[in-house]
Amino acid sequence: MPMDRDAILFANEAFYRAFADRDYAAMDGLWARSLPVVCVHPGSAPLAGRDDVMASWRAILGSDMSPAITCHEPAVYQYGDAAAVVCFEGIAENYLVATNLFVRQNGRWWMVHHQAGPTNDAPQPEAEPETPRLN
Amino acid sequence: MPMDRDAILFANEAFYRAFADRDYAAMDGLWARSLPVVCVHPGSAPLAGRDDVMASWRAILGSDMSPAITCHEPAVYQYGDAAAVVCFEGIAENYLVATNLFVRQNGRWWMVHHQAGPTNDAPQPEAEPETPRLN
Repeated sequence: MPMDRDAILFANEAFYRAFADRDYAAMDGLWARSLPVVCVHPGSAPLAGRDDVMASWRAILGSDMSPAITCHEPAVYQYGDAAAVVCFEGIAENYLVATNLFVRQNGRWWMVHHQAGPTNDAPQPEAEPETPRLN
Repeated sequence: MPMDRDAILFANEAFYRAFADRDYAAMDGLWARSLPVVCVHPGSAPLAGRDDVMASWRAILGSDMSPAITCHEPAVYQYGDAAAVVCFEGIAENYLVATNLFVRQNGRWWMVHHQAGPTNDAPQPEAEPETPRLN
């Protein structure tokens, strides 16, 4: 089973780009059409089925209240033709942890699941550039 | 790709039984040994790797503060040899939503991922038994 880390990370990045850009058409293009999908927004009950999942994204992305979002420290866990990406989501000053599940079909990774929930933790700060020590 | 709903639900049920029974040995037996694993406890950062994941379960299951837990409305999403179960978790008077990810190896479903987070929603109440109407 070939590892496909870059393509999985690319699919995950496309999800956060669509989210950040409030780009419903891009979001719609990421979610699988011939596989069952499910989405768990923070604090909400699971949404099962593509119609309900995409309606939720249409509402979120169409809202003026929709927050800016950034993805941090995505880690890929590949299991053959399925892969989970677990990452932090930065929203305003807060962080969530998200799991995004992708399935490979005909060479492309399709989103089939997303769950995000609040965390008290935070991603590691970016490493400071190394500076020479003077003594 | 054969569907295997009952076996996946059985693996999910075994997880909640081990959790409810505070049975570390049973929990240890459920998590994959030759696949990457990751666990996101409510409010926490992701734990990657079997050592850290199992240490967290040892602490949770060994604690007197460990809450009773029940699983409600598990829904199975199978993608070949991988499957997500999304369900409500009942803890005291509160509910969480959880995603549990399993991967089939040599005919057995192994747990590879768990994320749980709080929800303001709740599972549907059990249907009342139908009673005949008197008028």
